[in-house]
Amino acid sequence: MNKYLKTDHWKIIEEGFNKENVTSSESIFSIGNGRMGQRANFEEDYTGETLQGSYIAGVYYPDKTRVGWWKNGYPEYFAKVLNATNWIGLRLVFNGEILDLNNVIVSDFRRELNMYTGLLLRSFTAELQSGSSVSVETERFLSIVDDNIGVIKYSIKSVDYTGNISIASYVDGDVKNEDSNYNEKFWDKVSESALENESIVTVRTKKTGFVVTTGARVEVWKNGEKLTLNFDSSIKEKYAENKTLVAVLPGDEIVIYKFAANISSFNHSESDLVNVTKAELDKAQSKHYNKMFDEHSQAWAKKWEESDITIEGDVAAQQGIRFNIFQLNQTYTGEDERLNIGPKGFTGEKYGGTTYWDTEAYCLPFFLATAEPKVSKQLLIYRYKQLDKAIENATKLGFSNGAALFPMVTANGEECHNEWEITFEEIHRNGAIAFAVYNYIRHTGDKEYLVDYGLELLIAISRFWSQRITYSQQIDKYVMLGVTGPNEYENNIDNNWYTNTIACWCMEYTMEAIEYVKTKEPGKYDVLSGKISFNESEEQARWRGIVENMHFPENKELGIFLQQDNYMNKEQILVKDLPQSQRPINQHWSWDRILRSCFIKQADTLQGIYLFEHKYDIDTIRRNFEFYESRTVHESSLSPCVHVVLAAKIDDMQKAYDLYLRTSRLDIDDYNNEVAEGLHITSMAGTWMSVVQGFGGMRVIDNKLYLSPKLPDMWKSYSFTIRFRGSVLKVTASKQNVTIMNKTNVELPVIIFGKSEIVEAKGFLTVKM
Amino acid sequence: MNKYLKTDHWKIIEEGFNKENVTSSESIFSIGNGRMGQRANFEEDYTGETLQGSYIAGVYYPDKTRVGWWKNGYPEYFAKVLNATNWIGLRLVFNGEILDLNNVIVSDFRRELNMYTGLLLRSFTAELQSGSSVSVETERFLSIVDDNIGVIKYSIKSVDYTGNISIASYVDGDVKNEDSNYNEKFWDKVSESALENESIVTVRTKKTGFVVTTGARVEVWKNGEKLTLNFDSSIKEKYAENKTLVAVLPGDEIVIYKFAANISSFNHSESDLVNVTKAELDKAQSKHYNKMFDEHSQAWAKKWEESDITIEGDVAAQQGIRFNIFQLNQTYTGEDERLNIGPKGFTGEKYGGTTYWDTEAYCLPFFLATAEPKVSKQLLIYRYKQLDKAIENATKLGFSNGAALFPMVTANGEECHNEWEITFEEIHRNGAIAFAVYNYIRHTGDKEYLVDYGLELLIAISRFWSQRITYSQQIDKYVMLGVTGPNEYENNIDNNWYTNTIACWCMEYTMEAIEYVKTKEPGKYDVLSGKISFNESEEQARWRGIVENMHFPENKELGIFLQQDNYMNKEQILVKDLPQSQRPINQHWSWDRILRSCFIKQADTLQGIYLFEHKYDIDTIRRNFEFYESRTVHESSLSPCVHVVLAAKIDDMQKAYDLYLRTSRLDIDDYNNEVAEGLHITSMAGTWMSVVQGFGGMRVIDNKLYLSPKLPDMWKSYSFTIRFRGSVLKVTASKQNVTIMNKTNVELPVIIFGKSEIVEAKGFLTVKM
Repeated sequence: MNKYLKTDHWKIIEEGFNKENVTSSESIFSIGNGRMGQRANFEEDYTGETLQGSYIAGVYYPDKTRVGWWKNGYPEYFAKVLNATNWIGLRLVFNGEILDLNNVIVSDFRRELNMYTGLLLRSFTAELQSGSSVSVETERFLSIVDDNIGVIKYSIKSVDYTGNISIASYVDGDVKNEDSNYNEKFWDKVSESALENESIVTVRTKKTGFVVTTGARVEVWKNGEKLTLNFDSSIKEKYAENKTLVAVLPGDEIVIYKFAANISSFNHSESDLVNVTKAELDKAQSKHYNKMFDEHSQAWAKKWEESDITIEGDVAAQQGIRFNIFQLNQTYTGEDERLNIGPKGFTGEKYGGTTYWDTEAYCLPFFLATAEPKVSKQLLIYRYKQLDKAIENATKLGFSNGAALFPMVTANGEECHNEWEITFEEIHRNGAIAFAVYNYIRHTGDKEYLVDYGLELLIAISRFWSQRITYSQQIDKYVMLGVTGPNEYENNIDNNWYTNTIACWCMEYTMEAIEYVKTKEPGKYDVLSGKISFNESEEQARWRGIVENMHFPENKELGIFLQQDNYMNKEQILVKDLPQSQRPINQHWSWDRILRSCFIKQADTLQGIYLFEHKYDIDTIRRNFEFYESRTVHESSLSPCVHVVLAAKIDDMQKAYDLYLRTSRLDIDDYNNEVAEGLHITSMAGTWMSVVQGFGGMRVIDNKLYLSPKLPDMWKSYSFTIRFRGSVLKVTASKQNVTIMNKTNVELPVIIFGKSEIVEAKGFLTVKM
Repeated sequence: MNKYLKTDHWKIIEEGFNKENVTSSESIFSIGNGRMGQRANFEEDYTGETLQGSYIAGVYYPDKTRVGWWKNGYPEYFAKVLNATNWIGLRLVFNGEILDLNNVIVSDFRRELNMYTGLLLRSFTAELQSGSSVSVETERFLSIVDDNIGVIKYSIKSVDYTGNISIASYVDGDVKNEDSNYNEKFWDKVSESALENESIVTVRTKKTGFVVTTGARVEVWKNGEKLTLNFDSSIKEKYAENKTLVAVLPGDEIVIYKFAANISSFNHSESDLVNVTKAELDKAQSKHYNKMFDEHSQAWAKKWEESDITIEGDVAAQQGIRFNIFQLNQTYTGEDERLNIGPKGFTGEKYGGTTYWDTEAYCLPFFLATAEPKVSKQLLIYRYKQLDKAIENATKLGFSNGAALFPMVTANGEECHNEWEITFEEIHRNGAIAFAVYNYIRHTGDKEYLVDYGLELLIAISRFWSQRITYSQQIDKYVMLGVTGPNEYENNIDNNWYTNTIACWCMEYTMEAIEYVKTKEPGKYDVLSGKISFNESEEQARWRGIVENMHFPENKELGIFLQQDNYMNKEQILVKDLPQSQRPINQHWSWDRILRSCFIKQADTLQGIYLFEHKYDIDTIRRNFEFYESRTVHESSLSPCVHVVLAAKIDDMQKAYDLYLRTSRLDIDDYNNEVAEGLHITSMAGTWMSVVQGFGGMRVIDNKLYLSPKLPDMWKSYSFTIRFRGSVLKVTASKQNVTIMNKTNVELPVIIFGKSEIVEAKGFLTVKM
């Protein structure tokens, strides 16, 4: 835990310069626009500890898998998130002295991330080694309107400095990845050019051959006037710069504008890259800073209109939830079906790859409720487009007949994680991907998706389950052996209740979907059936047989579902009896000890109950919640949110609130001392879920929106916004009332506290809490 | 399978030059002397595919562990077997043409390993590119008398070549390891010298800092006369050579003698290395080839006297078993308590490290029965000396109170394997190490070992078990969760019957040992007890509680012990029903599929029954054997031998013989197409076990030697030799009789076919089969 930031409703604020917090702040103050992202590295030189990060969506590097003992089925490569060309760099030299916050006396340091406008600000006064001082104010944003462009406004005011300032604006592709083995660099040179105030560098990734052109133009203004200057422009390998000199006296203000564009072969043909870059720079310069910022901040205002959550009476909670929403919207915009949401988004390298089951299980509900359906649909299409590779992956593991196993971690559809207990065994991800189809249709009502894409994917996944599940003569039941559930503190277990549950659900839902498509679109059904050689009666008979006779471990005495066979053979110790000095256990215990213990990283049995809540009565939910919550150490950032939702469901509001606190400010307060590596982007959606589904009681059942808000004692009121079937509702819950405001022209029936109501177009509805 | 070698009673013979077999033959024709080893690389240049290997016992390199996701408790480093300085090199240039079997026309190629004398021979005729021919005959041995020295006699006869031969004898420390990442080299330069006919190179391993000096002297003889020649001696980094020129005419014979010594800081202070090397070279040159070879071959004759097995009526079987015995005796001599027996011995790099549980479980019985007790005792002392590190290792994993977990793989006592399912879970190795103490005492009668070393180790191991085993309230039994048994085709299973069995046995035996030492040497007992803070009553009460109430999985219906909890939930398919195209399954199936299947790499339940055979009636043994043998794919080279012993026990001689064939010629016939990587040294002891314990029925029970030989139908007779309690018996079994000859002056009672007899000193005994 490291709590050094100020609380505020809309801003993240750092005051005072502490070198120890630089890498943490670099993560927390990251900015992105769905197309690219930039850690909050300083524009000027910095020789202190830093993690440099500029990330381009869709561009990755496949590093060679190295393991001790190779196991058949391991992927040959695993993706790395690539640090790309530095476009922010400004070298400022004051009479021979390079400005570097590691080497000057810094005062009045302040950093601010304005989440409402998507603007990063920084200001400080530097007393140079020469003794004179300058004040600096910087502004930076990555436009979400012109999403290839980043803009910097860098102001220097001389307090008592007299002399020249040498200003070099540069573009540097000679960058490294923190996680590279042997300091290997992942970018090769293509070309460099530097002419007048423009620098352009093109580099190519090793192996994958992605080409990225980064261009920048610099303008220097003095006391409000744009200067006409000569630039000394030069290049070296993977590097270009434009250098100039201005003379200043005390009181003078120099403003440097830097407009930069990143254009990649992911979107353009290689031969066009430089021209597109120049055109983008032309556009940026002609709109200039103010217009670009206005458009950018208006677009942000619109995002907030649809996705904001307000919390009254608790500024820390307010700031926390907005930070999470801001980061999610920075990371994914739904513009491109080839992109997805990495666990660290654009804020760090860790975890490699860009797509985990986090997307379907945690992020999708957020985008379903806060953005137009096309945004969520892109996430589904992403997986659909990778179905062939998922089939190839399953085939490599010995499955047949078009069975698909989607990868645990991927950048392009190929598996790129390489630990057998995850890669081969954490197969529940297939369930989350199928559930996303259901969830999307349930929320949007877009059943066409099933016809055009969904069914094919569902059948491939059901085929996987039906082969992965085997029959045990011993117990005369179907079983699923050797899996790892979402609770990764168990490996290679038999009959993980969650995985068995979601697998059976998949097969049932697939059969429903077959019925629907067959009836609705018999022609399309026949085409699909032929394409995938679907043996309808035989395959469905197998699925039905499994669904009807699957083994689900349980403990009847305690009235709970059992996480896995033999779970009760473990020593049953409760988390409350664990000494604080041993937590988190993943930093204090050997893996072996963790595996043997009853402690749970995230409770997958509860995850199953959360997904299929309607199947279980409230007492069953309570018994399971109490049993598993008391054994869960929440050492996955994805863990607490599900517990919040269930705790609220069973009316344990204190528990719900306590767990909510863990998740909403996880990164801002750096609970696990690791924020320097990047933010927990995907788990941020869990925080949103905690409020809307947990406290707000939002559910979708049988095409209807359910709400039953509860208010944590600490809060005066809170509000959230939900898009559902063409309507956008703002729900506000206070101690007295719940008010539902319909922002659209579409009336909507809702079930509030179990009672059917209609929220009229542009109207509102108030009910007592 | 690759069967290209001739069968012979005493020799391994290769005829004809096939480049595809070069790397395989390099393994098979390896020579060693316990102190060092050398693959059968050619002395002259060879540009074809080759795996160069010169290995110095005790010298290793700790490479940095790299894994995907780090798990607490992983070792930071893992040992690599190091390819050391090349001492065999001779560069031969004929009128400008380098002799290189990859570039000449080779005829009459023959290679022979004389196992009786420990001599490697090679001969061939090379038609040079110039058109002229030379015939070459080489001899090479690593003296087992002067074990720092290797000797080469290299004869070149001109068939029709006229001209000069440039002869360069060199020592080259600039060598690489096949398994190095990024082609990193592991040796740094220390010094080089080349003077007249002597070359000396000293190099140092990175990180570990082992220093090895390799020296060589060369002599050139012509037509039986030693030549006095000028040498052009030169050095470069890590390299030294002595070059000279001789003129030859057709019919001339040039003989090159090369004497080499490898001296390491493992045995000498660094400053002495060069002097010791020179002294060793002086000794070698003064004894010269013939005397050195005589001493060497006499020492080998003595080894054969004690360890030979003869088989009449089956030359292939005879050759196979001798090859195994030869390799074991080449690899380990018991001269140094710091050395052990790597899975590949001195024949390849694979598996890293030098010590596995193979030593105790497979090799120890061989050395107990074929060498003086001090040889086996060294193997035990090796582990005893590493007890502190084993305690440190267990402490790192969260155990306390002096509990010890010996490493799965080690070079110096530190764990150096890094896959959690092996490192943390394959803990049965602790059992094998404890059993070795028992086995040594049972065979030699040396109970003093218990007092001086054994008890301390046993208590540390029992402490480990007592903490690793937990109590299950659910079944009111003690359980051992999350282990990997010797059957590595299951990971992280609960209650592996074998591990539970050997753990309980350990605790029982430790308690017996405590009683013995306490009674016999109360003073020493008190000292030990104080040293390790042994709380005798409390700790023993815990052990007794576990032993009396341990859970052993079984299937009562089938009357078998169960390999692990829930094993019967797997699909029960038999090996005979597996298509041949899918075998070995470890080359055709994903790891995931292997784990979920019922197939067994090596049957650990049978391993337990083998170790504690006296506890089980013959029907129990038969039922378990039939159940597990039919599910075992024998994809560990350590697997078949245990099955041979049990098959012979239950009188299934056909099965025993079939399985025996798999093990005895595993490497000679390259069953798994991998002999190029090195030989399966430790499993060779299993072959010996198959004959002596399997067919010979040799057991030691209550201080007595039991024998009950059975004869495979294919054989006329066989014999083996056993050292037991000061006597050396040669046992010969034919279709009619068993003859036991006592080679010593010590009479010995034996139980033959269940009947007590005495074999008188120097006498013999014959009983009917």
